Amino acid sequence: MIRVGICGYGNLGKGVESAIQQNEDMELVGIFTRRNPKEIQPKTKKGIVYKIEEMKKFKDQIDVMILCGGSATDLPWQTPEIVKDFNVVDSFDTHAKVAEHFLKVDKNAVESRKIAIISTGWDPGMFSLNRAMMEAILPNGKVYTFWGKGVSQGHSDAIRRIKGVVDARQYTIPVEEALEKVRNGENPELTTRQKHIRECFVVAENKSEEQRIEKEIKEMPNYFADYDTTVHFVSLEELHQNHSGIPHGGFVIHTGKTGFDLENNHIIEYNLKLDSNPEFTGSVLVAYARAAYRLNARKECGCRTVFDIAARDLSIKSYEELIKNTL
Amino acid sequence: MIRVGICGYGNLGKGVESAIQQNEDMELVGIFTRRNPKEIQPKTKKGIVYKIEEMKKFKDQIDVMILCGGSATDLPWQTPEIVKDFNVVDSFDTHAKVAEHFLKVDKNAVESRKIAIISTGWDPGMFSLNRAMMEAILPNGKVYTFWGKGVSQGHSDAIRRIKGVVDARQYTIPVEEALEKVRNGENPELTTRQKHIRECFVVAENKSEEQRIEKEIKEMPNYFADYDTTVHFVSLEELHQNHSGIPHGGFVIHTGKTGFDLENNHIIEYNLKLDSNPEFTGSVLVAYARAAYRLNARKECGCRTVFDIAARDLSIKSYEELIKNTL
Repeated sequence: MIRVGICGYGNLGKGVESAIQQNEDMELVGIFTRRNPKEIQPKTKKGIVYKIEEMKKFKDQIDVMILCGGSATDLPWQTPEIVKDFNVVDSFDTHAKVAEHFLKVDKNAVESRKIAIISTGWDPGMFSLNRAMMEAILPNGKVYTFWGKGVSQGHSDAIRRIKGVVDARQYTIPVEEALEKVRNGENPELTTRQKHIRECFVVAENKSEEQRIEKEIKEMPNYFADYDTTVHFVSLEELHQNHSGIPHGGFVIHTGKTGFDLENNHIIEYNLKLDSNPEFTGSVLVAYARAAYRLNARKECGCRTVFDIAARDLSIKSYEELIKNTL
Repeated sequence: MIRVGICGYGNLGKGVESAIQQNEDMELVGIFTRRNPKEIQPKTKKGIVYKIEEMKKFKDQIDVMILCGGSATDLPWQTPEIVKDFNVVDSFDTHAKVAEHFLKVDKNAVESRKIAIISTGWDPGMFSLNRAMMEAILPNGKVYTFWGKGVSQGHSDAIRRIKGVVDARQYTIPVEEALEKVRNGENPELTTRQKHIRECFVVAENKSEEQRIEKEIKEMPNYFADYDTTVHFVSLEELHQNHSGIPHGGFVIHTGKTGFDLENNHIIEYNLKLDSNPEFTGSVLVAYARAAYRLNARKECGCRTVFDIAARDLSIKSYEELIKNTL
């Protein structure tokens, strides 16, 4: 059995907990939190919630710690710190800072002789892996990534910070026409606005302020100004009833040419339709936790990404089974 | 530069030749054939065609030999034999005999300290890799594979062997309704007949024999009897004009459940639309040739499959570039 710990028990932590249940070679040993452990009731096991400060005591009882904190303020210090005592897996997704994060984590992992696999999940993660594979197979080509339809937590939060907003949910939606052009191999040059639209469901404190709120959303730099944005005002009840799920998904599409005169077109597509973003992401983290365990069992150490991991190390199946039934 | 050889110069060998051209780190050194080398004119380079018996002389001039023979009679002996002198990549696709092929190749590769990567291409190959990854991420799920729309060489050949048939082309086509059911997460149980239909374009010697030929096709065991098959009789001219391409493609779709009560559904899909089956397959072989070279440069030896190879070893990009631009 691979003995697993979870650090951080928000949506992602719960997603990891439910994924562990589905993997017969894994056992959940501890959940570590900054909150009061007594206030947390895990769904699958009792009496396994501890203060994050107690983690070190579990050094010999946990094989892999799955880090479920946020990329903004948690993971930048947690991953390099926790890898001093445990093999770790994280879903660090601040693209601009991944190289820096990698170096910090790698240094400590090499020293502690542990394995860290960073930036797993689906983007970065499965989408990154597919982009790399597609480009390797068809170097004369172009890869496109579309996200959605799905809830963007970051954009929903940005709306909630506007004065007079009680709650909000933002959906990122790929532009169907752009998707079709890419799938037809037209190799379009697409602006931000041409790739995605943003649809917002907003609960306002006062009806009289809706116009101002809508304007503030649509003009918000980075988040909305570069997109065609639709704003719907709804009641809190309606928001809870129709928009409480956390679905997401997306498309990676690569179009490439082959032939002596580049006369043949090929389209490779990978797409996801997810009812629950955190549960799917948690499932990916758990598969990479298996790989982290196996790499370290082979005495490997240091920082890794999805680009380093072979499928056989993610699979619960034996190699013989894979060859027989999956190849 | 990675110095590459091609063994076998049919459609696949030409596909490999055109793919090598697109990869800046590769150089085509020799093409080896059982035919008379003088009768073969490669498209990209002159004076590099040799009899297959001369291959051994190139032991120190070729880093990876890409084997482009057939799975029925060539690869079963070529791969184990040629790996005695070269790193090799093949596209062995007789599912029932892969385990046996693996063992034979592995034994010789370990002895010669070379690397062999077998059963690459798209199915087996990219589809196998995706099936393994999908099942690893969502163990509570079901994976479906559909092929087409595309030309099946094996089925076209089977029709050509019928008495009175001048030429023929067979398309495998996935049943749209079945695809939709799978994509909707309905988890259907599908029979062979419910998954694919077979459409045949046939040139008959005599119009009077068309009825007999159609009957023989539709009742042919293994190839057609288990499918809904349509037969169109066309002129040789029409066959050449409208059916001379070798397109193919297909879909791998995995539907899985997560959540403490398995309440959330997820769909992962990988699909290919290929204008030229041999050129795409050739492109995959070339990417795995890069991996074979790199593994052997790290002193690894033995037989491998797509399940063993990490994306970073397939990519021409540096790891830093991958992290920066692809992650």
